[in-house]
Amino acid sequence: MAKPKKQPRPKAVTPKGFRDYFGEEVTQRTEMLRTIAGVYHRYGFDALESSAVETVEALGKFLPDVDRPNEGVFAWQEFDEGGNGDWMALRYDLTAPLARVYAQHRNDLHTPYRRYAMGPVWRNEKPGPGRYRQFYQCDADTVGTASMAADAEICAMLSDTLETVGIPRGDYLVRVNNRKVLNGVLEAMGLGADAAARDDVLRTIDKFDKVGEQGVRELLTKGRLDASGAFIDGVGLSEDQAEPVIAFLTSKVDDAAGTLANLRAAAGDSKIGAEGIAELEQIGELLAAGGYGADRIQIDPSVVRGLGYYTGPVYEAELTFEIFDEKGRKRQFGSVSGGGRYDDLVKRFTGQEVPATGISIGVDRLLAALREKGRISVQATGPVVVTVMDRDRMADYQAMVAELRNAGIRAEVYLGNPKNFGNQLKYADKRNSPIAVIEGGDEKAKGIVQIKDLILGAKIAESATLEEWKERPSQFEVPRSDLVAKVREILDSQD
Amino acid sequence: MAKPKKQPRPKAVTPKGFRDYFGEEVTQRTEMLRTIAGVYHRYGFDALESSAVETVEALGKFLPDVDRPNEGVFAWQEFDEGGNGDWMALRYDLTAPLARVYAQHRNDLHTPYRRYAMGPVWRNEKPGPGRYRQFYQCDADTVGTASMAADAEICAMLSDTLETVGIPRGDYLVRVNNRKVLNGVLEAMGLGADAAARDDVLRTIDKFDKVGEQGVRELLTKGRLDASGAFIDGVGLSEDQAEPVIAFLTSKVDDAAGTLANLRAAAGDSKIGAEGIAELEQIGELLAAGGYGADRIQIDPSVVRGLGYYTGPVYEAELTFEIFDEKGRKRQFGSVSGGGRYDDLVKRFTGQEVPATGISIGVDRLLAALREKGRISVQATGPVVVTVMDRDRMADYQAMVAELRNAGIRAEVYLGNPKNFGNQLKYADKRNSPIAVIEGGDEKAKGIVQIKDLILGAKIAESATLEEWKERPSQFEVPRSDLVAKVREILDSQD
Repeated sequence: MAKPKKQPRPKAVTPKGFRDYFGEEVTQRTEMLRTIAGVYHRYGFDALESSAVETVEALGKFLPDVDRPNEGVFAWQEFDEGGNGDWMALRYDLTAPLARVYAQHRNDLHTPYRRYAMGPVWRNEKPGPGRYRQFYQCDADTVGTASMAADAEICAMLSDTLETVGIPRGDYLVRVNNRKVLNGVLEAMGLGADAAARDDVLRTIDKFDKVGEQGVRELLTKGRLDASGAFIDGVGLSEDQAEPVIAFLTSKVDDAAGTLANLRAAAGDSKIGAEGIAELEQIGELLAAGGYGADRIQIDPSVVRGLGYYTGPVYEAELTFEIFDEKGRKRQFGSVSGGGRYDDLVKRFTGQEVPATGISIGVDRLLAALREKGRISVQATGPVVVTVMDRDRMADYQAMVAELRNAGIRAEVYLGNPKNFGNQLKYADKRNSPIAVIEGGDEKAKGIVQIKDLILGAKIAESATLEEWKERPSQFEVPRSDLVAKVREILDSQD
Repeated sequence: MAKPKKQPRPKAVTPKGFRDYFGEEVTQRTEMLRTIAGVYHRYGFDALESSAVETVEALGKFLPDVDRPNEGVFAWQEFDEGGNGDWMALRYDLTAPLARVYAQHRNDLHTPYRRYAMGPVWRNEKPGPGRYRQFYQCDADTVGTASMAADAEICAMLSDTLETVGIPRGDYLVRVNNRKVLNGVLEAMGLGADAAARDDVLRTIDKFDKVGEQGVRELLTKGRLDASGAFIDGVGLSEDQAEPVIAFLTSKVDDAAGTLANLRAAAGDSKIGAEGIAELEQIGELLAAGGYGADRIQIDPSVVRGLGYYTGPVYEAELTFEIFDEKGRKRQFGSVSGGGRYDDLVKRFTGQEVPATGISIGVDRLLAALREKGRISVQATGPVVVTVMDRDRMADYQAMVAELRNAGIRAEVYLGNPKNFGNQLKYADKRNSPIAVIEGGDEKAKGIVQIKDLILGAKIAESATLEEWKERPSQFEVPRSDLVAKVREILDSQD
């Protein structure tokens, strides 16, 4: 064996693009996932947890003409004497693993199969501000049915989920569109078979929210000067050709029936377009029957959804309230979830088409929205801290925390060096402790403990007058036997 | 670009050694993790979620004289034009990442830092039956204090955790030992500095549970014939040399004071041994003060714990009830958690010694134990299934499930092909549905629905006499407006 080189100390850093989550960041996400799982479960969806690692071929990201899988996924080759080990990779979403799971276990699963999944996914992409290479997804999909009732159900569930996690009605909107309608419009324009032109038009439609009707009209035809003065080349359609796209984009009116009528006009006599419109109509009827009105779910032709694999209805949930961006400008919070119908994913494995539809919720964005609205706070209440006045009586302090914990109260004894009492209070402060408990030799002799209300203390120190300070003491002397009762009383008063 | 080869269909399989978890397997683990987190939180521990991916150097598994990180971890090299990208790897436990996190964030964290972490870890090992390459760990550690109060607290918390998840007192035992005592015994034997002999003795001690006192005595000296008739070489000590080890191993008596006295005799005048015994004594006193008696936590010299990095107290939680193994023989369920004090892990990064102590709970083993004891069942109740008698009235059925779901009842409409009604009931059966709801044209006209109690129906079909069958109908006809009330009544009667 070669002599090991002396190594420098390792750097204590996460790999580039990864981060750690502390305290409430973790527990709030866990709570949100639990709440969402509750809704999904009520809708009859079953949990699925597939492994984080998949074969590269199952993920479908392997380029056969290169040695290494392409960028986008984190992949490695299984060790094998001959160097022929399989390539494995971390999943980049939860849909590709679902397709693999369904293909693998289809004989044991009931059909249709409603499943939810939640967990981290990994992307081998260039990290940026707020863009990490590991993040959470929270998906629900129904596999094995082409019924629009499955799509309607997903939209209803998305609406229920948002309200259940704390986004009130009126602050969000689920918008539904159908790829087939769009394809019908492109067919009506004579672009049905021209993939490049289609992509150009789709990209342009995606800008409707930003540039509006006139902007899209210019971008579809001869081009446009943008706000910064730069000229953006147009797609090169004639004004006449652009018209169906504009008609399609502006087809949304207040009532669904009106929107559908406008879409019918835009799609002309395209068969695929008519199919898509009929599907949207069905979804609308089913949602109405379930009591989901236009205040929650709307048909909206401007929803495109980037992913190429969608084949029918597509959905997007948007938070409609305004926030201030980093430059202090007002803007809508935007999308927190999206999905749609994809009928071809399982076919890769089995050769048989298996219809499927589902959504993915961006849990971290949803958490950010709730924090933005002040509905949850990252600042958590810390534990009651039992201070250590006498190092030799640790057993006494341990008995106190045991009593508090047995009463269900979050509590800890100070475990650092107890010599400097100021450090103990600084620690309690850093922990956001609501209460400190003190028992020195004198207190012990008298059978009492001192209980310090740190929250009230901080308030008083900030703003109280001398009178108030006298009236509302923030430190109490109580018999040792009243410790738990008094701590609970103070905690209750702090709520 | 080279022309892509036509690819065969990908195989729908997990990579070797990985598996998928379905339904209750997932939700029961989630619930258990939540319960454990609740106990940890009450003890003042804060959540931490570090990324699944670490640099290989931070994990400390990199061999400098080979191209690839060694086996044991899943590792890959970050893409870089020059081929000099960093090596990254999936974490193999939650302790190594904690050391990295503490070293990286130590200026922002309070000290002592109590943290818990739960999540999957990955091992690049040969998979075997029941041995997977991805599994869950659930850890709690206190970093930054050498106080034995931290160790006592961890043991108390472990005991509380086991009882909270459903292991009754008497069915488990937390056993505590101290590496220093063992080192003292080895010192007393004159083996303090002989690493190879030490390891041999440690390995032998680990067999005490299996081979007993006489077996260990033989293995420490001239060797032993095992049950199969094979001869196992001995360590080669003299009978006199072996005596302190035997004294150490058999030092456990019913009361802690007696055990400690026996340990003192076994460790002779070794300074490190005396230190370890004093630490055990402290832990014992603190636990007694907290009300944790020998029915929950005991000092037990036979606990060794494999990991080399432990430097002081070590703990192990064992389930003491018996189960039948795969060959039908009774055996104790065994260990579900272990841990100890490790004072050197953070030092790798910072050069400064940071004392730390903690435990890891094997969540999947604990779940298996609860299933074994019949305390939880993998068989879950499925959703109420609203069947589809008339494909054109899907909106009616959707309205029914919406009502049920809004009332908090798990429900779904059948989304498969409704043509064959038998298939719908087969589906409900496969889903473990408690109730099926039926509304055909006749029912619709009369304003009623049929509600089928599938659980009672199955029971009756199994065993009822004709009289019972008549007395206890399992299908009810109720007004459509009573749907929710009747479903709830049946669900309540099924509990």
